[in-house]
Amino acid sequence: MSTSDLRTPISPEGEMMVDLLTGFTSGIRAEARANDQNGVFPVDTFRGFAKVGLMGAAVPAELGGLGVTRLYDLAVGLRVLAEADASTALALHVQLSRALTLTYEWRHGAPAASALAERLLRAMATGEAAVCTGLKDAPGVVTTLTRDASGGWRLSGRKTLVSMAPIGTHFFVHALRRDGGDVPGLAVPLLSRDTRGLTVQPDWDGLGMRASGTLDVDFDNCPVPETDILDRGPVGSRRDAVLAGQTISSITMLGIYAGIAQAARDIAVQHCAKRGPDVSSGVRSTIAESDARLYALRTATAAALLNADLLNDKYTMDLDERGRRMMTPFQWAKMTVNDLALRVVTDSMSMVGGQAYSAGHPLARLYRDVRAGGFMQPYSYADGVDYLSGQALRLDRDNDYMSVRAVRSQTQS
Amino acid sequence: MSTSDLRTPISPEGEMMVDLLTGFTSGIRAEARANDQNGVFPVDTFRGFAKVGLMGAAVPAELGGLGVTRLYDLAVGLRVLAEADASTALALHVQLSRALTLTYEWRHGAPAASALAERLLRAMATGEAAVCTGLKDAPGVVTTLTRDASGGWRLSGRKTLVSMAPIGTHFFVHALRRDGGDVPGLAVPLLSRDTRGLTVQPDWDGLGMRASGTLDVDFDNCPVPETDILDRGPVGSRRDAVLAGQTISSITMLGIYAGIAQAARDIAVQHCAKRGPDVSSGVRSTIAESDARLYALRTATAAALLNADLLNDKYTMDLDERGRRMMTPFQWAKMTVNDLALRVVTDSMSMVGGQAYSAGHPLARLYRDVRAGGFMQPYSYADGVDYLSGQALRLDRDNDYMSVRAVRSQTQS
Amino acid sequence: MSTSDLRTPISPEGEMMVDLLTGFTSGIRAEARANDQNGVFPVDTFRGFAKVGLMGAAVPAELGGLGVTRLYDLAVGLRVLAEADASTALALHVQLSRALTLTYEWRHGAPAASALAERLLRAMATGEAAVCTGLKDAPGVVTTLTRDASGGWRLSGRKTLVSMAPIGTHFFVHALRRDGGDVPGLAVPLLSRDTRGLTVQPDWDGLGMRASGTLDVDFDNCPVPETDILDRGPVGSRRDAVLAGQTISSITMLGIYAGIAQAARDIAVQHCAKRGPDVSSGVRSTIAESDARLYALRTATAAALLNADLLNDKYTMDLDERGRRMMTPFQWAKMTVNDLALRVVTDSMSMVGGQAYSAGHPLARLYRDVRAGGFMQPYSYADGVDYLSGQALRLDRDNDYMSVRAVRSQTQS
Amino acid sequence: MSTSDLRTPISPEGEMMVDLLTGFTSGIRAEARANDQNGVFPVDTFRGFAKVGLMGAAVPAELGGLGVTRLYDLAVGLRVLAEADASTALALHVQLSRALTLTYEWRHGAPAASALAERLLRAMATGEAAVCTGLKDAPGVVTTLTRDASGGWRLSGRKTLVSMAPIGTHFFVHALRRDGGDVPGLAVPLLSRDTRGLTVQPDWDGLGMRASGTLDVDFDNCPVPETDILDRGPVGSRRDAVLAGQTISSITMLGIYAGIAQAARDIAVQHCAKRGPDVSSGVRSTIAESDARLYALRTATAAALLNADLLNDKYTMDLDERGRRMMTPFQWAKMTVNDLALRVVTDSMSMVGGQAYSAGHPLARLYRDVRAGGFMQPYSYADGVDYLSGQALRLDRDNDYMSVRAVRSQTQS
Repeated sequence: MSTSDLRTPISPEGEMMVDLLTGFTSGIRAEARANDQNGVFPVDTFRGFAKVGLMGAAVPAELGGLGVTRLYDLAVGLRVLAEADASTALALHVQLSRALTLTYEWRHGAPAASALAERLLRAMATGEAAVCTGLKDAPGVVTTLTRDASGGWRLSGRKTLVSMAPIGTHFFVHALRRDGGDVPGLAVPLLSRDTRGLTVQPDWDGLGMRASGTLDVDFDNCPVPETDILDRGPVGSRRDAVLAGQTISSITMLGIYAGIAQAARDIAVQHCAKRGPDVSSGVRSTIAESDARLYALRTATAAALLNADLLNDKYTMDLDERGRRMMTPFQWAKMTVNDLALRVVTDSMSMVGGQAYSAGHPLARLYRDVRAGGFMQPYSYADGVDYLSGQALRLDRDNDYMSVRAVRSQTQS
Repeated sequence: MSTSDLRTPISPEGEMMVDLLTGFTSGIRAEARANDQNGVFPVDTFRGFAKVGLMGAAVPAELGGLGVTRLYDLAVGLRVLAEADASTALALHVQLSRALTLTYEWRHGAPAASALAERLLRAMATGEAAVCTGLKDAPGVVTTLTRDASGGWRLSGRKTLVSMAPIGTHFFVHALRRDGGDVPGLAVPLLSRDTRGLTVQPDWDGLGMRASGTLDVDFDNCPVPETDILDRGPVGSRRDAVLAGQTISSITMLGIYAGIAQAARDIAVQHCAKRGPDVSSGVRSTIAESDARLYALRTATAAALLNADLLNDKYTMDLDERGRRMMTPFQWAKMTVNDLALRVVTDSMSMVGGQAYSAGHPLARLYRDVRAGGFMQPYSYADGVDYLSGQALRLDRDNDYMSVRAVRSQTQS
Repeated sequence: MSTSDLRTPISPEGEMMVDLLTGFTSGIRAEARANDQNGVFPVDTFRGFAKVGLMGAAVPAELGGLGVTRLYDLAVGLRVLAEADASTALALHVQLSRALTLTYEWRHGAPAASALAERLLRAMATGEAAVCTGLKDAPGVVTTLTRDASGGWRLSGRKTLVSMAPIGTHFFVHALRRDGGDVPGLAVPLLSRDTRGLTVQPDWDGLGMRASGTLDVDFDNCPVPETDILDRGPVGSRRDAVLAGQTISSITMLGIYAGIAQAARDIAVQHCAKRGPDVSSGVRSTIAESDARLYALRTATAAALLNADLLNDKYTMDLDERGRRMMTPFQWAKMTVNDLALRVVTDSMSMVGGQAYSAGHPLARLYRDVRAGGFMQPYSYADGVDYLSGQALRLDRDNDYMSVRAVRSQTQS
Repeated sequence: MSTSDLRTPISPEGEMMVDLLTGFTSGIRAEARANDQNGVFPVDTFRGFAKVGLMGAAVPAELGGLGVTRLYDLAVGLRVLAEADASTALALHVQLSRALTLTYEWRHGAPAASALAERLLRAMATGEAAVCTGLKDAPGVVTTLTRDASGGWRLSGRKTLVSMAPIGTHFFVHALRRDGGDVPGLAVPLLSRDTRGLTVQPDWDGLGMRASGTLDVDFDNCPVPETDILDRGPVGSRRDAVLAGQTISSITMLGIYAGIAQAARDIAVQHCAKRGPDVSSGVRSTIAESDARLYALRTATAAALLNADLLNDKYTMDLDERGRRMMTPFQWAKMTVNDLALRVVTDSMSMVGGQAYSAGHPLARLYRDVRAGGFMQPYSYADGVDYLSGQALRLDRDNDYMSVRAVRSQTQS
């Protein structure tokens, strides 16, 4: 019995995943505070995940995974996890969303890409592979793939905000590919951690999400075989079809912020319930409004996820249209979540009072963690305004933020 | 293919109903302005509805109706109608929601109530019966059912805000029943329009919803046969089970406010789209935020409706629990809708500019209509805060606002 | 003892004006509902204003007026008036703000303009002259001043939203002046009501402010003597100095919306206070938040007014800088007022309940009246975003919306 | 030239203080990040403050201080300081507000209290005395003053959140005084740091305001001479007169949150201004709205401060009335500031993008610091709702939160 409010998985595989995750939550909750304080990645938790198959939760059953394919269910899982610790959920999200995009490559990619995907997916299912993604260039850097003297490829640059990096065995790296022609391309090479020239920087000091292992990774002339490069076409080609993949990669993260807000609200209500019926007027209004906001947050997220699930395998429709129809509700939901989750957390702090301002209080951690939502791509608030108003007004524009960034880095360099 | 966002019916009966309603919308839209200005009820439109079976849309097929049973679908229909004219949707809602509660009486009521229900439902299906509800007492009045000398029942009092009254053939009237005992009861007698002593007052001058035929009805010692009285038990009995019926009666109205907000947004975006790509920054931000708000509004409404649909026939579970589980998400959604729908309408006016401030402009009507949402029962904002915070804090209280009102009228008189 | 919260005048002249206005408020309040309903301008009230000198409140004492020069005090007076009836305040504002700009012409204008100003100001002081302003062209029209065969000037076009028009004896009309050259100019001819070709259109049907006598005025080849034309320079000259006059003309209107919000809040609190200490949680929170919003609204308005008062006679400073320094806080305050006043009014309706939705209820009128604030120039929300962000980012742009509109009308025609 | 917007001091003494503070800001800004990270109190900065007389800024000139008496000016000073580092401003606030209340004791107190006050004020002026306040009991503790065997007084208990504690030479401690009678009293003993049994706990780990030296202080049977005890009357005496002192002690803190919001906005606008005119729509709207919010925040704060300044020496009016008239606008402003300052900070982070999420970024610190505002007494949001709605509805209640807390601690123990 599903009520579209992000509480119950809708597939048997999803149920199994959520059951497995639930087994970990009390342990995760117990060490969340210390890991946050020290910025320590919970290596043992992920070892545990690997053992029970959770590192392969979104890998197809044929390749040894749990076979969770519904974005809705993955988001429910991340919500459950985030209620215990948002950093852990953020790191696991990296692995889960990568499995989704690799499954697409496996089924629909060219033979080389398909083979690459299968190899990785099998390793993710067993827990051997933890696959990170380098999306955002470090300030001032353009991570670039160029030909070397022998005709092979070399990657140089630096990526920032790479989550799950402490245990990452492989790294997909979004790069600009220059091959002599006028128009550079977008490409995503895969590097294993032991690649020569690849260095995971140890230190990161974030405002929140401090146990997510979100690090910088350097690439110093790293060799990459041709077969390990996913091609993403020329820069500036304006294909809205790519919005589908971008939605699939990121939309389940909304579950994390739903979990953060829920955790904050639950702490506050439990605190207030102790006072009995003499709860003050301001608190009663805040509880009612917080619960209404949480519901709007959860249902908008749930609907955007179900919409993406419905369109996910509609490969026969116009792919640009499919991309826009996946991205638009995602962005509506994201704008709602970023607004409401922070509001719920900060109001929960008010309900609990001054003790919530101690650095070690769970609400203080949630307050720092929740703010990450606004920086999650796609899109930032400003880019979201441009995309959504462009859609409403039917403006002709490049909706691929990766491509737009690449173009911008071109004109600036 | 449903995406839980209040756009597409989920049952074949719902689809048929929406198709039928859609056939009326251009005509309704054409006369909306004049009806609003003059406070005229669209009698011809409802004659048309009757002809094609829409006055029996929620009547079971066995009794000659269209057989729409899903609350979700009924709300989608009301949304479609409200985009053309909210007053018309509000009036039709009266008939639709009454069919739902009568269907319950028909299936589960005592023999007399079941027979009464069947008779009315069959007449609604053919369009002969338009059944109004008198819920709210006029200020200072307590509408009361008392024994007359001959042992029969007499109804006296005055109800206010009775929608669809101009064409009402029957009136269910919420009343206090005094029968000599200490504790009065709640009862709902049915009166046909030609009952001696029943007068529909002709004039109402509302801020908005002016074509909804929302009138006062007087009852001056009206005779009521015992068989035409639905019993609602003693005042103050604290049965949360009644929350189910209250949810079913009112939740589909949320579709009306979703329709109002959507209509306002569409007018604004069409207006701005004419300007081409040089839309100003403030307008672009407003469009993006309005669309995000509309999505949150629609998805919260949709989820609350689907939740009520799921619980609707769960008669084997604890009925108090069922009542609360239907009412709570309804109230979360209602609080969200009342907040966001007004915001979307007023921002749409800003996008269009000064012409939207002319009384005859559709946005000026929507601005007046949308404000009705806050007065829809259950609950007002303040009562919603009490109910929802009571639920969150697990406080023991009477959640039946009809009973609470009756108790209050007792102590005040 | 002043506390900068828009409650007490700061000059003796301001006090006298507010005392005089206060003498009218109970009469104004008594007829507000009927005038609103029927769209009737309160001619007798304005006759009364004239008798006691209020039509010359802002006329210098040397010319027979009350000599109120402080914008702050004028806004306090409009607030007091608006608490009784916002339409009346809006109409009086037209006369008051015109006296301010004419006083500037009298003191600093060229001899012809100075003489024209003196003549009018003396007539305003006695109450003979009621001076309207035609600012906004009717849709599709560009009101234009052209040379006739004999070398004189002719005005043709149509202005919309001209307040106080029913009793207007003179009309200043913002027009485009074409004189054969490439660049047209901006000019403001003065026409007396009996000018040949000038027609005040009788009917206007606004959403709110219905008793403000806000009408269309037609100009059909009206002759205008050269001496009755105020020159405003060539279109597109980008002089921020004009922002001072635009601020002075409009900023006191913020007092009207402060009065509307205050009136709504007072009705609601009086209603709730009757219930004694058992006021529900939602109501208590709403009262506290409404009062906080009212305070922010009043203090932002007060500060912007005091700022404008301080800069008003600083003619030795850079005049462009003076213009920007008057306009910027005005716009900050305006954005705040438009947001908060509507919020206070709509929350007040919720506190009172369903009776506030009757068309004749004062809150229903306030709900319609308050929405006018967003359409008051300068600026609309979108233009305000452009101006304020341009100032913050130090962008080079034309901040004169009258000029920008003229340029736009040029390129479109 | 003052415009009531919290930017310019209004007294010469205030100007001098702000000039002196401004001399420190670049140094303070330079070390703010490190002090925040390590939770280190800036001892050298306060040594510098002492040297130039700033530790006696609010001490009367007759006693050797700078003689700043205007609350408005003190808040302007704290705003300037908070733009560099909010923690430093919070700590200095302790000293400044204590000088204000001691000056009252000096002028109006009984001889013993007056002498005590004079002694401390002279030492504050020279910088020898740094006077802390212990207001809030540690959880579960009631700090209590009792008679010892010899008829003297002993203080035992624990205070939490005592700012400026690392350099505190004296501590005023709000305590319950039990003297055998039925009704305990409220009293505020003064203890010097070297008092036997007084221990300043070294560690505090706050979410923000980490360099403010906000520590716990233990009192283990500390001896206190009778002459060093300020008497505050019996618990539960409902004297609204005390609201004046509570306002004076806390209202200038609003300047700190104004400074935090301003600093955040300035960082964001400087960041965006680099991009030139191609700033995106979402950013332009956010800048305009942030500036409008900052203005409302500053002007509401300024008006509440000016109001308190005006009433400050009105000792001949009804003192309960004076107390309420100081507290009410303070609470209106506080509710506004807590709401808007957080909004401005979080929107500023969005404008800057992901780099603002690094722990060391100034915006990340401001995001943590700004949240302290909601916990500042008087009042919390919920207590503010109770107080303000009580005032609006003229309810009879105890408005002294210190007394209410004491009563509550009585009934709970």
